[in-house]
Amino acid sequence: MNFLNEVSQRFPEAVSFAAGRPFEGLFDTELVHRHLRRYTEHLMERFDGDVTLVRRTVLQYGRTKGIIHDLIAKNLAVDENVVVDPESIVVTVGCQEALFLTLRALRRTEQDCLLTVLPCYVGVAGAAELVDMPLLPVQGSPAGIDLADLVEVVRRAKESGLRPRALYVVADFANPSGISLDLETRQQLLRLAAEHDFLLLEDNPYGIFHAPDTEPLPTLKALDRDRRVVYLGSFAKTGLPGARIGYVVADQLVGDGNGGTQSLADQLAKIKSMLTVNTPPVAQAVIGGKLLEHDFSLRAANAPENAVYQENLRHLLAGLAERFGPDRRPGVSWNVPTGGFFVVMDVPFPVDDELLELSARRHRVLWTPMHHFYGDGEPRHQIRLSFSYLTPEQITVGLDRLAEFVDEQCEENGTTAPNQGGHL
Amino acid sequence: MNFLNEVSQRFPEAVSFAAGRPFEGLFDTELVHRHLRRYTEHLMERFDGDVTLVRRTVLQYGRTKGIIHDLIAKNLAVDENVVVDPESIVVTVGCQEALFLTLRALRRTEQDCLLTVLPCYVGVAGAAELVDMPLLPVQGSPAGIDLADLVEVVRRAKESGLRPRALYVVADFANPSGISLDLETRQQLLRLAAEHDFLLLEDNPYGIFHAPDTEPLPTLKALDRDRRVVYLGSFAKTGLPGARIGYVVADQLVGDGNGGTQSLADQLAKIKSMLTVNTPPVAQAVIGGKLLEHDFSLRAANAPENAVYQENLRHLLAGLAERFGPDRRPGVSWNVPTGGFFVVMDVPFPVDDELLELSARRHRVLWTPMHHFYGDGEPRHQIRLSFSYLTPEQITVGLDRLAEFVDEQCEENGTTAPNQGGHL
Repeated sequence: MNFLNEVSQRFPEAVSFAAGRPFEGLFDTELVHRHLRRYTEHLMERFDGDVTLVRRTVLQYGRTKGIIHDLIAKNLAVDENVVVDPESIVVTVGCQEALFLTLRALRRTEQDCLLTVLPCYVGVAGAAELVDMPLLPVQGSPAGIDLADLVEVVRRAKESGLRPRALYVVADFANPSGISLDLETRQQLLRLAAEHDFLLLEDNPYGIFHAPDTEPLPTLKALDRDRRVVYLGSFAKTGLPGARIGYVVADQLVGDGNGGTQSLADQLAKIKSMLTVNTPPVAQAVIGGKLLEHDFSLRAANAPENAVYQENLRHLLAGLAERFGPDRRPGVSWNVPTGGFFVVMDVPFPVDDELLELSARRHRVLWTPMHHFYGDGEPRHQIRLSFSYLTPEQITVGLDRLAEFVDEQCEENGTTAPNQGGHL
Repeated sequence: MNFLNEVSQRFPEAVSFAAGRPFEGLFDTELVHRHLRRYTEHLMERFDGDVTLVRRTVLQYGRTKGIIHDLIAKNLAVDENVVVDPESIVVTVGCQEALFLTLRALRRTEQDCLLTVLPCYVGVAGAAELVDMPLLPVQGSPAGIDLADLVEVVRRAKESGLRPRALYVVADFANPSGISLDLETRQQLLRLAAEHDFLLLEDNPYGIFHAPDTEPLPTLKALDRDRRVVYLGSFAKTGLPGARIGYVVADQLVGDGNGGTQSLADQLAKIKSMLTVNTPPVAQAVIGGKLLEHDFSLRAANAPENAVYQENLRHLLAGLAERFGPDRRPGVSWNVPTGGFFVVMDVPFPVDDELLELSARRHRVLWTPMHHFYGDGEPRHQIRLSFSYLTPEQITVGLDRLAEFVDEQCEENGTTAPNQGGHL
């Protein structure tokens, strides 16, 4: 993603549908102080006023598995109906460290590999690269994942001596596709994971950002009855990005190397002790305070942010329909997620990084070429539009510029019919 | 170190010479608020009062290489007479992440390995294990390192097809030995590194904790004229452990994989983007504020802490002399560092984890068996005494108990003569 950051910096006047960052309009540094005070008050109560213990908890080297694991367990119960032992939680430096720890633990031999659904969040390829773990891509589909292909990929992998340890999957409003899995698909995934003996690494950064009038589907972890799901959590979008706190729920039992068993969480903690030792207690305290202030519900805490994202999503979808209605430009279409941060747009021309640069230079609008999420560098006829970071006014201006860009490209490519043009 | 933590928890009434943690007597959670405010005021000035930019810097996803790199560069200039480009600094989650990133970058092939001086800080073995990098041990000596053995180890490694990429070294008050290298040894190390083409990974967590009336020796980085030294820094002891901030200065030029060159810092940042993405800006801000408050001098900021450590060191050395004077107990001796956190004591009997447990249970005193720093599990006739975490009163009580334990062991082992007894 270095190239994308670089383009963003070179064209500061461009409207950016590229940045998947949380909205900044509600940021306030005073909140850090408030959350921190709330957490230290909580510790004062818990330690019966022993200020030495309070100071030690927040200011000293801390427990490798974290200091707010108990509060996170309460959050999972309140928001996700997921009941886990706090001891099965490891608090991490963002979700990315949780992913790294998990892959490092799963990669024991050259045969261990990871299943990913295409298109896939780029952080997964990064973590896998760091631990030298091969990726086995599984075809995506309009429903999120092609289950027949999943079975086929697993079968072929095993035949060739590989050992698929886990499938990385985002069940709710995936990055980049915006797609959520339906209940049937979730249940099928759990069934297939048990049948073919692999884990599900469920990453859930966007799940709480759904339409307020819709009932969210249960996460894979909420449906998990036999500890098939390792749950990766992030407070980057729901807590505070600058605290950089994530976590992993790893309640699986694994070998301890001495003939006994231990929890996967304890195995991850051992790896973490060699990697970052512990997650900054000061930063954990900030997230702990926010959880306490909102009675452990980040759904409640994020009502204002979610209103922004939902309004932006409505505005983006309406603006797309207005500018690229069915007859206006053949080959242009987009999916219609009901939440999250992303919409994917099909265009009738192949999209690479050069085209992004042209879009930035000539039209002052940025977006993300979808080939970055396929890992093969092959240009796709798709772009990702992120709407989390913008105001409705910026979205309007950005869509006007995007329409100019698409019109220009359609004309230069001489596309007339929707798919043929696009895929020539 | 899990075993040591476990023993500490099982014997909370024991006096612990085991914990190498910073002194807690000066901890105050209000300092977190104060430092944070100082840093945000600094940003307000820097951004001409643009509160959006201030909030973005502290609260949003941040720059992978960090947000306080400029302040760290000033700290290095003021405290260490080391002048570096802020762009060569990567701010990390403790020094341990800096170590991991560096080893991950240096380990490119199966032939790449790391030189370490025995005894060695256990975090090095941990990071090396995570990146599957073999360690090549070099003999320590009363002066810190056996340079002839270093040359021999490098020669033999190259002969057998290995590629020693770097030597991990703590030049000032090493953990666990407490030894500092003299100026001649520092210069020799730089010369040998150039001659045999390896880097020096200089870790410096304790350098500023020296006797106030002594002039500190220049760090290896301060003596480095041709970018042979990668400097690993930590604010865990000098800033605030709970912020968990470290950094690495990596001003070397390396290949970028496309036929060009890039700085090692940029290569480390790329790895970091796949590992933790960025170091919590909120935690960096706390350290940034502390640096600003003390005009970038952590030597000045830590005068009160250093007074505690120096007084503890004097008290420990005097107490050891009192209880184990030359004629009192043959085979018992200790080194006499002038700073840092650690003293190493020779005893006339082999020391393993079982003996620590006995010491904890029967005498209520903890310390660290030295074999943990050799990585071979072979019991040594040595223990590490850490004095950073205790008060003089606790040290007195602890030494009384330690004397009981040592007396008991000497009698049980029937040792009479100093070295023979110890090494039989």
